[in-house]
Amino acid sequence: MLPRFFAPGAGQTGDITDLPGDEAQHLTRVLRLKAGAPVRIFNGRGMEFDAVVESVTKTRATVTVGPARAPAPEPRVAVTLAQAVLKGDKMDDVVRDAVMMGAAAIQPIVTTRSEVTLATVSRSGRVERWERIAIAAAKQSGRATVPAILEPRTFADLVGALGHAALSRPALPGPGLMLVEPSAARGPSMPGESTLGEMTDPPPRETTLVIGPEGGWDAEELDRGAAACRLVTLGGRTIRADAMAIVALAALFAHWKEF
Amino acid sequence: MLPRFFAPGAGQTGDITDLPGDEAQHLTRVLRLKAGAPVRIFNGRGMEFDAVVESVTKTRATVTVGPARAPAPEPRVAVTLAQAVLKGDKMDDVVRDAVMMGAAAIQPIVTTRSEVTLATVSRSGRVERWERIAIAAAKQSGRATVPAILEPRTFADLVGALGHAALSRPALPGPGLMLVEPSAARGPSMPGESTLGEMTDPPPRETTLVIGPEGGWDAEELDRGAAACRLVTLGGRTIRADAMAIVALAALFAHWKEF
Repeated sequence: MLPRFFAPGAGQTGDITDLPGDEAQHLTRVLRLKAGAPVRIFNGRGMEFDAVVESVTKTRATVTVGPARAPAPEPRVAVTLAQAVLKGDKMDDVVRDAVMMGAAAIQPIVTTRSEVTLATVSRSGRVERWERIAIAAAKQSGRATVPAILEPRTFADLVGALGHAALSRPALPGPGLMLVEPSAARGPSMPGESTLGEMTDPPPRETTLVIGPEGGWDAEELDRGAAACRLVTLGGRTIRADAMAIVALAALFAHWKEF
Repeated sequence: MLPRFFAPGAGQTGDITDLPGDEAQHLTRVLRLKAGAPVRIFNGRGMEFDAVVESVTKTRATVTVGPARAPAPEPRVAVTLAQAVLKGDKMDDVVRDAVMMGAAAIQPIVTTRSEVTLATVSRSGRVERWERIAIAAAKQSGRATVPAILEPRTFADLVGALGHAALSRPALPGPGLMLVEPSAARGPSMPGESTLGEMTDPPPRETTLVIGPEGGWDAEELDRGAAACRLVTLGGRTIRADAMAIVALAALFAHWKEF
């Protein structure tokens, strides 16, 4: 297996492009590759190529882009994971897992019960860290696509946008799926609530999967979510907040016969 | 929500039983409960009860078993996870995740490419550690059943037993599902290999899900496995060894409409 690098500047065969700093370090200092070494590169936008190391210095690595290779197939359903920011560094694992599972994009959200504010998330450099994690996870999992980390927004803002999309494209199956605890634990069943197995629509082309924080949703969020999304449960299981995304993505992709 | 404890001695309403040492510590030192405090208990064999703390000392906690409560539902398919022992403490996370997902039992196995021997696994106290992790995970995920950690065995020994079971009960859908890399990466398709979505049998009552180590299966193991199990792929995804179990269990349970 050839070593594989992220080369966002690779557009077509024949290009000569520098690797980003982290990737250049990996190539030169960790793997100690020299000019002439064959490698694989992916541009993060779905293209994969053979390549050859053109030159290396202490801080730079330049490659010549060779023939295009078939990239690992992406899921037919483009799932944006809208995940409430979790405590500590748990969101790092969620980003890593979601990229491995094939999420198309990751939308960090802040909810009523989130323990951070939108301002903190936006100013803390976390988006940049999640971007680095997404690149590393695409590298490890063989994807040629690096999912975008979207600008963090509030849950209210997100469901407003999803509700608007649902109104403007009523022929589509609901654009949003919101993961909720089974209502047995909560009182009367919410309108539109179903288990994954009860969903009978054909797979949508795209959807947004909305997952809450450790403390779950409050009543107002459930009402707003129900107006814009289909509410989905994972049966009676109690699943750790930081495992919800990987479990829900695996279950959804299985439901849609992606596996 | 009442605090919840593992009380393996609880058989029926009216019993008076001591909690195991770890649980007694949790009750007395962490939560500082006193005699008379209401709690929930589960016996690890599928029963859940209301209970009342009868007495506490520095090292013991005794409860009186109250009315039985409906336990969280267990999956209709009893899945034994046969997982190759992974490096470092990664197996700890696999055990925790498998219990959360609803595995019925966990069978540690040693394969050709495992980095530990059966003797090391058996003598290292790991089985006891995994048992403690299984109890903690059942506690956190609300299960009243604590999956057994079976005696570690070799892959060859396991598939021998699965093959024998398949011969003696030919009417059942194969008792084993062995997770493999898609054969595109390996050469010609293996006999009986399918993706999850191609499995059309009704859900079995029980199955063994066999998952390999970081380095995957060797050719002989694939042959032996194919003789005793259905070979299943998770499509073209490259999934970390320590995430295979949670992803495969979520996908299988979704496929069988457990969610």
